[in-house]
Amino acid sequence: MPDPSATQPAILFANDAFYAAFADGDPAAMDALWARRAPVSCIHPGQTALTDRAAIMASWRDILGAGPATIRAVHPVVFPIKDAAWVTCHEILPNGTLIATNVFVREDGAWRMVNHHAGPAPLPEAAPDDERKPTLQ
Amino acid sequence: MPDPSATQPAILFANDAFYAAFADGDPAAMDALWARRAPVSCIHPGQTALTDRAAIMASWRDILGAGPATIRAVHPVVFPIKDAAWVTCHEILPNGTLIATNVFVREDGAWRMVNHHAGPAPLPEAAPDDERKPTLQ
Repeated sequence: MPDPSATQPAILFANDAFYAAFADGDPAAMDALWARRAPVSCIHPGQTALTDRAAIMASWRDILGAGPATIRAVHPVVFPIKDAAWVTCHEILPNGTLIATNVFVREDGAWRMVNHHAGPAPLPEAAPDDERKPTLQ
Repeated sequence: MPDPSATQPAILFANDAFYAAFADGDPAAMDALWARRAPVSCIHPGQTALTDRAAIMASWRDILGAGPATIRAVHPVVFPIKDAAWVTCHEILPNGTLIATNVFVREDGAWRMVNHHAGPAPLPEAAPDDERKPTLQ
């Protein structure tokens, strides 16, 4: 079992890569960071769950087709569980704030996304309600 | 590594236990089904993330304090990944429909909840977009 403290930077890196692909409007980068063998799901804000990789990638091509987007993730908190982990973070967009649960698994030596669920939430004025220090971007 | 097909009923049972505790307004049952050692998080609809077990349980005591609730989960889909899994499902409440991502880990021989994230979503008219057969309740 890996040391959770050692895996946190790698998981945050994977989470950052997701938001970089989103902000860059880069569908190839988005495709590369999602798992290829593990099951995957994606819940876009206010929508039902997509549970098929091809449907998820088609949704991202639609979203990213507009080009670079103004999005950034703040207050990420990593929850490591053996060979998987999830991250909660807030997403700051021009028209509002969302909160996301992003799940990652180890696949071929890399942390790859297996679930993204974003929905409406206010931005917290302070850090999350525990003692962990979030990485502010 | 367990056979995913063999673990699916146990994970669905854990997911059902969560909604049974919710519907019964039973804070003790809710407490028992959340992990005790693994990290936990909870995102109630439209709210920010709670990332501390005591804060999460306090939120459930508030929610369940009103007594039995009219809630049922439909279209659950299980995504098993080694000793963890997540379930997406729709929640039917008197005033609307939500979609949830519920994450579970194996702890002390049981599947225990480590993340619940619910937010607004329409109820899909058909089954999810893959070939798996959801368990309808």
